[in-house]
Amino acid sequence: MGRYEGSFVVFEGGDESGKTTHARWIAEQRGAVFTFEPGGTAENEEYRKALMHSEVSHRTEALLFAADRAEHVHKVIRPALEGGRDVVCDRYIGSSLAYQSYGRGFELADIWKFSKFATEGLLPDLVLLLHIPYEAYAARRQQSLKGITRFDREAEDFHRRVLEGYLDLASRDREKWVIIDGTQTPENVRLEVCEVLTKRLGWEL
Amino acid sequence: MGRYEGSFVVFEGGDESGKTTHARWIAEQRGAVFTFEPGGTAENEEYRKALMHSEVSHRTEALLFAADRAEHVHKVIRPALEGGRDVVCDRYIGSSLAYQSYGRGFELADIWKFSKFATEGLLPDLVLLLHIPYEAYAARRQQSLKGITRFDREAEDFHRRVLEGYLDLASRDREKWVIIDGTQTPENVRLEVCEVLTKRLGWEL
Repeated sequence: MGRYEGSFVVFEGGDESGKTTHARWIAEQRGAVFTFEPGGTAENEEYRKALMHSEVSHRTEALLFAADRAEHVHKVIRPALEGGRDVVCDRYIGSSLAYQSYGRGFELADIWKFSKFATEGLLPDLVLLLHIPYEAYAARRQQSLKGITRFDREAEDFHRRVLEGYLDLASRDREKWVIIDGTQTPENVRLEVCEVLTKRLGWEL
Repeated sequence: MGRYEGSFVVFEGGDESGKTTHARWIAEQRGAVFTFEPGGTAENEEYRKALMHSEVSHRTEALLFAADRAEHVHKVIRPALEGGRDVVCDRYIGSSLAYQSYGRGFELADIWKFSKFATEGLLPDLVLLLHIPYEAYAARRQQSLKGITRFDREAEDFHRRVLEGYLDLASRDREKWVIIDGTQTPENVRLEVCEVLTKRLGWEL
């Protein structure tokens, strides 16, 4: 696929789409490095808190996510790929484009530029978008035991723009992005995820 | 000058150039808001520590400085200007250009882009560059009681590029930048700073 022996797979989607669960499971089955954003480096755990819970301006937020990604690529993702490992990452550039551009309204080109700089152009080999409509997010969020982040406090309209943004991103790059219906049962999502990974990357799962 | 009633004055220069001392004194004399980067917002004090002391990658560093600036403009500089105050700031966009582009080697256009996004294009009315040659920096640094940051640990070559970078930036924008010889006695630097501010902005000091 890319320039490394191992593959770099990213799970994207709104909160409550189930992507973290599936990404972790796949990484375990495959013996891949599992990691996540924001805050995938130990040093960045405090940034994760700052990013998800503190009230910074939207511009600051966009730049902090890019900074977090730069450190994550530098310390975790690239070393793993250079070591011949597969990497499964929960959120990556797609999240910045969906949340900061479609959601917050910043120019796609600006947000893209920050991530391009941050990652030195390291793109995933495959992006799995677990898509759920807003109604499913809202229903699942109410039942969730996870803490409320400031993204959860955003209005319905924000979440709808993010979810639509994800679909738009996927439609622009059909070679790398695959949309999976996240409203299916977890078992069926898992089956579909496995099928795609086998077909696209030859992973035996 | 700019779009605000008050003026926005920035002091730039390498460490040990005396800019903090002079910036504070001028702000006090003028009754202006004194502020500084990085970390000029209370919430960003931990970023200041992270930026100056922790070992993050150079790309992360460049984006974190931009994030810090976005928050600083949003919370401190723009509100002060909108409130009709003058603002005197110790370091601003020039520092990112000098350290991250001339010093670290990143494209000037990239570093500029991050700051343009961070500040929504808010530029200072006047930039006072307190220039000292590398030898003066090195001699003063040895006598200084300030803690060592990771910038101080950089090689001589890095500091020389930063200092030359500042001169280059000043030569590209003679309308906004004024170079002041920082090797003069503090009294003479102060006199020259006052003269420039009186001549350029009509400040009575």
